[in-house]
Amino acid sequence: MDIAQGRRRPRVIIIGGGFGGIAAAQRLRDVDVDVLVVDRHNHYVFQPLLYQVAAATLAPSDIAVPIRWYLRKQDNTRVLLGEVTTINTSERRVTIDGVREEPYDFLVVAAGSRHAYFGHAEWEPNAPGLKSLDDALEVRTRFLAAFEQAEATEDRDERRALQTIVIVGGGPTGAELAGIMVLIARNALRSDFRQIDTAETRVILVEGGARVLPSMPEELSARALDDLRAMGVDVRLNTMVTEVTPTHVRLGDEVVATRTVFWAAGNQASPLGSQLGATVDRAGRVLVEPDLSLAAHPEVFVVGDMAVTVQPDGRAVPGVAQGAMQGGRCAADNIVRTLERRARRAFRYQNRGDMATLGRHRAVADLSGGLRFGGTVAWLLWLFLHIAYLAGFRNRLVVLIQWGWEYLTWQRGVRLLPGQVRRGA
Amino acid sequence: MDIAQGRRRPRVIIIGGGFGGIAAAQRLRDVDVDVLVVDRHNHYVFQPLLYQVAAATLAPSDIAVPIRWYLRKQDNTRVLLGEVTTINTSERRVTIDGVREEPYDFLVVAAGSRHAYFGHAEWEPNAPGLKSLDDALEVRTRFLAAFEQAEATEDRDERRALQTIVIVGGGPTGAELAGIMVLIARNALRSDFRQIDTAETRVILVEGGARVLPSMPEELSARALDDLRAMGVDVRLNTMVTEVTPTHVRLGDEVVATRTVFWAAGNQASPLGSQLGATVDRAGRVLVEPDLSLAAHPEVFVVGDMAVTVQPDGRAVPGVAQGAMQGGRCAADNIVRTLERRARRAFRYQNRGDMATLGRHRAVADLSGGLRFGGTVAWLLWLFLHIAYLAGFRNRLVVLIQWGWEYLTWQRGVRLLPGQVRRGA
Repeated sequence: MDIAQGRRRPRVIIIGGGFGGIAAAQRLRDVDVDVLVVDRHNHYVFQPLLYQVAAATLAPSDIAVPIRWYLRKQDNTRVLLGEVTTINTSERRVTIDGVREEPYDFLVVAAGSRHAYFGHAEWEPNAPGLKSLDDALEVRTRFLAAFEQAEATEDRDERRALQTIVIVGGGPTGAELAGIMVLIARNALRSDFRQIDTAETRVILVEGGARVLPSMPEELSARALDDLRAMGVDVRLNTMVTEVTPTHVRLGDEVVATRTVFWAAGNQASPLGSQLGATVDRAGRVLVEPDLSLAAHPEVFVVGDMAVTVQPDGRAVPGVAQGAMQGGRCAADNIVRTLERRARRAFRYQNRGDMATLGRHRAVADLSGGLRFGGTVAWLLWLFLHIAYLAGFRNRLVVLIQWGWEYLTWQRGVRLLPGQVRRGA
Repeated sequence: MDIAQGRRRPRVIIIGGGFGGIAAAQRLRDVDVDVLVVDRHNHYVFQPLLYQVAAATLAPSDIAVPIRWYLRKQDNTRVLLGEVTTINTSERRVTIDGVREEPYDFLVVAAGSRHAYFGHAEWEPNAPGLKSLDDALEVRTRFLAAFEQAEATEDRDERRALQTIVIVGGGPTGAELAGIMVLIARNALRSDFRQIDTAETRVILVEGGARVLPSMPEELSARALDDLRAMGVDVRLNTMVTEVTPTHVRLGDEVVATRTVFWAAGNQASPLGSQLGATVDRAGRVLVEPDLSLAAHPEVFVVGDMAVTVQPDGRAVPGVAQGAMQGGRCAADNIVRTLERRARRAFRYQNRGDMATLGRHRAVADLSGGLRFGGTVAWLLWLFLHIAYLAGFRNRLVVLIQWGWEYLTWQRGVRLLPGQVRRGA
């Protein structure tokens, strides 16, 4: 490293205010560096609960806080709302919104990923995914508008298509979304409508592989499959989506008429990864060294689901919140170690466990130490942990009340359609 | 009335799911009629608190509920999401979204009003108003984005313009918005920014008349003026806005550089009023009979701020929530009386009092019976009444916690910018 220490404070730029970027920034709180966090959004989102915003159960503000506010007590940290358009690793600077240049001594790239449509980018307008608050509100709008349109139409086939929701991808997001949507349709919404019976809504969950929640142990996948089917989700395993249009999807040979498709399958890392001069995999993820930096640029780190990190046991670190947070912390640690002229540490992912909640009293948990279980205990643990993790989001109490109320009444809270209705196909 | 009673149930169409329309629908809950409520939005909004959504203090879902959900227990009532495009009073039907026709026996028109720009419609894009949740989110976005842009710029003049907020109109909406915005800028936001001091933000409240809150008694206007000035609002009385551009406003001879103008002056009733064949005033409001119906069409009622209603004492009913709710109830009463072949009743507006809250411990109240006061007592009463009125919105407890937290910490809750940032002018 050739930073002129003592003459000026090293500058650290963090691209992305998600789990990885925020963890890195927080680790640098009391370090003698200048930190700049750049994000396109002004908020830090608790992504594991995005599906509840999409399902109109929580409000956006229940699971998001302004990045600025979250980091307000770090005097060495500035936050800039903007999009990094160029990374120039040889001159060590980034360009923001195409115009503003900011130099760095260390760079942490944590810009996350978007959905991948298996080479069918044309499907995206018909099948929004769930990565940001905006995505969640788009999904919510389509979910609620489908019932409004079904209520308004006199055409039986049209009504059936409007009451058919297809969710592509049987991972945690897809499975949780399918569970909550079927629950809402069969319970909360039922008394609101006169012409349609929302309990007739079909929720189809399509998974290309042989089981849902494929990252979990097989016994929990089986349990989750049973739970989803018991709740009324039509789960299709080993099924590929071969076409998505505004009026139908094709599942193998079957054509399903639907107006509402959601995408929870496949990721494509931020295109910023390709500007780093490093090797990227098919999903656009950057291959990093064990210390999370680039081989050619030890001052540049990539963390979260933009990076491919292989652990000593040969397993890749999953692109989940825990991995991003631990990666962000590790990258920041290594910046500190470099400044202190100490050796860097290799990233070691600590999996504290995976959980997914599917419905009332229905959840599965795979904890570190080999503890695996489902049902009410898993569900209560999920509730407890998510309430606990919302700490600092200061919405804990509000979310607790919201969930308590929803549990007791079977009603769901936030069913607001933004904007005016757009009618028609 | 020529309804063939006994053969089919009379059909009542209510246009608008605001205070007037909802009150009318609720009055008809146990009446042997079919009710159809049509609104462009799916939600019923507690409008008096819209300014708190605009100021990022409350979330949209704190003050709004789905109309459908609100009326879910009325089996005789359908809700349709759509825009009434035509009213055909001679054939007694309305057209929704240009295509769908619905006949009625009775019609209650409660479509509200939008802003009026004194004949300068071109000002609207530069000076959004505050009538709907979408408006409130637009105001919030501009309010928060101005600070983000001020933080990002190096240009002193630009920064000063970005930290200048102009609010046009000194009625309750303008005064409350000015009060809360200055409070947030001087307190809650201060620790979030590094380059700017948000306490230097200028909030200019422009009123064409001689006092703020002109509908209140003079002593309370004076009190509110003192409160606003003590809080740091730059109040300009007897001042006309003569130009609004993206970069400045002209106040008489003075040009004020600003990027952020909000409009709280002047109303224009829904254009539907002009389709009723009745006399409308300059603001597009329909002149109605004492029973709130049209002279030529006793089966058509107009309520809320779309109607001009003169009370026996010669005073016009103000276009506020109370007036709309009482009007909606009266119109529905008169539908019931007509069906029961009883005489209709004339609308009598009961003013239960006016209140406005300007800041912490700062409010003014003008209660029926001549009780007038300001300060902490008025502020507590305002809090109590607004929490009470949020009943049925089921967000009471959540709002109470939110406000309590904000009061104790001086922090404001919901500072989310929707979408990605749009930089530039």
